Amino acid sequence: MAVQTVATTADTAASPVDLGPAAALSCRECGHRIPLGPVFACEECFGPLEIAYDYSSYDTEELRRRIEAGPANIWRYAPLLPVPADVAEKPNLNPGWTKLVKADNLARELGVTGGLYVKDDSGNPTHSFKDRVVAQALEAARAFGFTTLSCSSTGNLAGAVGAAAARAGLRSCVFIPHDLEQGKVVMAAVYGGELVGIEGNYDDVNRFCSELIGDPAGEGWGFVNVNLRPYYAEGSKTLAYEICEQLGWRLPDQLVVPIASGSQLTKIDKGLRELIELGLVEDKPYKIFGAQAEGCSPVSTAYKAGHDVVRPQKPDTIAKSLAIGNPADGPYVLDIARRTGGAVEDVTDGQIVDAIKLLARTEGIFAETAGGVTVGVTRKLIEAGVLDPALTTVVLNTGDGLKTLDAVAGTGLTATIRPSLESFRSAGLA
Amino acid sequence: MAVQTVATTADTAASPVDLGPAAALSCRECGHRIPLGPVFACEECFGPLEIAYDYSSYDTEELRRRIEAGPANIWRYAPLLPVPADVAEKPNLNPGWTKLVKADNLARELGVTGGLYVKDDSGNPTHSFKDRVVAQALEAARAFGFTTLSCSSTGNLAGAVGAAAARAGLRSCVFIPHDLEQGKVVMAAVYGGELVGIEGNYDDVNRFCSELIGDPAGEGWGFVNVNLRPYYAEGSKTLAYEICEQLGWRLPDQLVVPIASGSQLTKIDKGLRELIELGLVEDKPYKIFGAQAEGCSPVSTAYKAGHDVVRPQKPDTIAKSLAIGNPADGPYVLDIARRTGGAVEDVTDGQIVDAIKLLARTEGIFAETAGGVTVGVTRKLIEAGVLDPALTTVVLNTGDGLKTLDAVAGTGLTATIRPSLESFRSAGLA
Ligand SMILES: [Zn+2]
Ligand SMILES: [Zn+2]
Repeated sequence: MAVQTVATTADTAASPVDLGPAAALSCRECGHRIPLGPVFACEECFGPLEIAYDYSSYDTEELRRRIEAGPANIWRYAPLLPVPADVAEKPNLNPGWTKLVKADNLARELGVTGGLYVKDDSGNPTHSFKDRVVAQALEAARAFGFTTLSCSSTGNLAGAVGAAAARAGLRSCVFIPHDLEQGKVVMAAVYGGELVGIEGNYDDVNRFCSELIGDPAGEGWGFVNVNLRPYYAEGSKTLAYEICEQLGWRLPDQLVVPIASGSQLTKIDKGLRELIELGLVEDKPYKIFGAQAEGCSPVSTAYKAGHDVVRPQKPDTIAKSLAIGNPADGPYVLDIARRTGGAVEDVTDGQIVDAIKLLARTEGIFAETAGGVTVGVTRKLIEAGVLDPALTTVVLNTGDGLKTLDAVAGTGLTATIRPSLESFRSAGLA
Repeated sequence: MAVQTVATTADTAASPVDLGPAAALSCRECGHRIPLGPVFACEECFGPLEIAYDYSSYDTEELRRRIEAGPANIWRYAPLLPVPADVAEKPNLNPGWTKLVKADNLARELGVTGGLYVKDDSGNPTHSFKDRVVAQALEAARAFGFTTLSCSSTGNLAGAVGAAAARAGLRSCVFIPHDLEQGKVVMAAVYGGELVGIEGNYDDVNRFCSELIGDPAGEGWGFVNVNLRPYYAEGSKTLAYEICEQLGWRLPDQLVVPIASGSQLTKIDKGLRELIELGLVEDKPYKIFGAQAEGCSPVSTAYKAGHDVVRPQKPDTIAKSLAIGNPADGPYVLDIARRTGGAVEDVTDGQIVDAIKLLARTEGIFAETAGGVTVGVTRKLIEAGVLDPALTTVVLNTGDGLKTLDAVAGTGLTATIRPSLESFRSAGLA
């Protein structure tokens, strides 16, 4: 099947696919519906397409039992995702069902009394939440007959795509700037797929990928976050599902979510609303707070200025996995933060490092810089009286500190001694 | 309670502790029994002490139901471990219940037809199997009233102890050689405990720790793999339990296990035998194969020479987490390999790197060097006709490739192109 940006109804109607409850693609802006296909922009208004589901046949309690009896990974929610019913039988990385850690030590430090939890996605197979979204894109790629799984990335996504394609037996081709640090190249290269360095910066890489998607040379290629984006993005809903089920089928009062493109935050909101509509959780208010790094804070800047549109920024922060200067879902994030009574806030690189250390010291969780952003923003919002410490709060950690060791490179020995008890005693360690 | 190497019956009888089914310490050599206490060597013969359990009250099917209804971590097996019944309620890292990956792609490459599985312990909280053993030591430390959790380490154990103590609210103090690489220092330091550099090599560090344990300065200190070793070591039994439960309460035919001190392999054997005795799995033969790096192969050297004793070696291998030149449990490993019809084999550093890449390319699992050792040995034993490819085989990966990136530093870009379709086509990527 040819890869294309915009599909007509006729094109995709010719290719019925089984992606479970996914019924159609629907335009987020104008509501125009088209059949499922590898497209991401509306033919009418060029708005983003997302998955429309048919959940009409579900009985609430039967669905709950089915989920609870499912596997300890995202496929327990297969009835709510754009995947075939037998998805768990196919080779994939089976991400998800990561720990929801009751963070009592951190709560004490931050003065949270209503229950503080860290949803720790460093427990995924390649140690970031990207495994969730790539797993959906993989199923879509299979359904559309693609043979190459592809992406541009400078970090987590590269590893997630390389690993998922390896397990699935698909070819992978990941595009990165040719001068990326050696450590990140190794993490992406080890899975044995094509790893192509582009002579240029990350913008050049992305421009090239868009060109490739529109060209016959890209035939059979599924770019997980471009032509498979509507499917890919749905993976973030599983974070909402898991948090609520792990809380005993209960909505948290407050969630603190990192913002890169903003897609994750909007899909978490979508997931929560689905659970309410399906009757799986009791309907009650919840607030979603967005977290950015000061060095890449287009959404929090817009939020604070009371704007509806997001003005692009040139990123300059250690939180590389959130460094998207022109976040596609920024306006939707603003809308959700305002509608739910949340907020969007940012923290400095220094506050990010402090928060990484705080989380490690209190809960034994070594987070990526993105986790430093959410914990740092949580602290800042509590101090500002915006986040209510008496309410149940869930903070997301979406990645692993081992991948951003440089951020805490200043951490070191607390003492150096000679191998003797004398030296030990005089260092005050006894 | 004072820390000591050898306890008399009178000492420990004074301190009854609740560690669930753990009934006593029993000498592996002479069978002498003493009450539970923070000791590791027999007062009669200086042999190693291990935990003796009282499982007599268990009904097989009720125990199975209790396990299956338990949490998705090692505490589902609390009835079989030296921990109090309410262990899951206490703050700890809740390791275990890691994925048993059906490795069909790898099986094809290796010619395995009887079912090949990778038990992937990189999914643990600090991404190595050490979280399992430290979690047991932590409960013992609590039971004995220790306030500092300690160890000597140059790698995985340092992170596991630092993280576990942080969550539990205990002080931690980790001893390392003062000139360790910066990356490893950061991974150990980030949890905020004491991290003490010793001026000397790893042997000097260990000598110092032994001195400290015998000194009043070490009062209240639990060294996870020294005075808490009998408890600590039991954590490896959970690998055996999980593998069998994940296979549908069935023993595998063959297991390939890495050898450092040899403790893990002996405890996996103990765990399998317990499941048979408890009736949780059907009794049938299984073979355990031990895997070492050629650059540190004291056990495989002894095995091949037909010796019962292990002659120490000076380690020189990239598999640092297995580089124990004088493995305490070496003779027991030889005994188990011979008794079960297994073997002990070693692979070169080059074969380790090849095996890491093979596992990543086929299954999307990025293993530590120790995982390269087990996969490499599996391949070698199949080629030699020692391991039967027609039998169900489980290979252990005990750590995470992100911690030993240097091993695959040669991995890199498969192509470099200009950001144009022309350049893409001429690179043969279409
Ligand atoms: Zn539209
Ligand atoms: Zn003895």
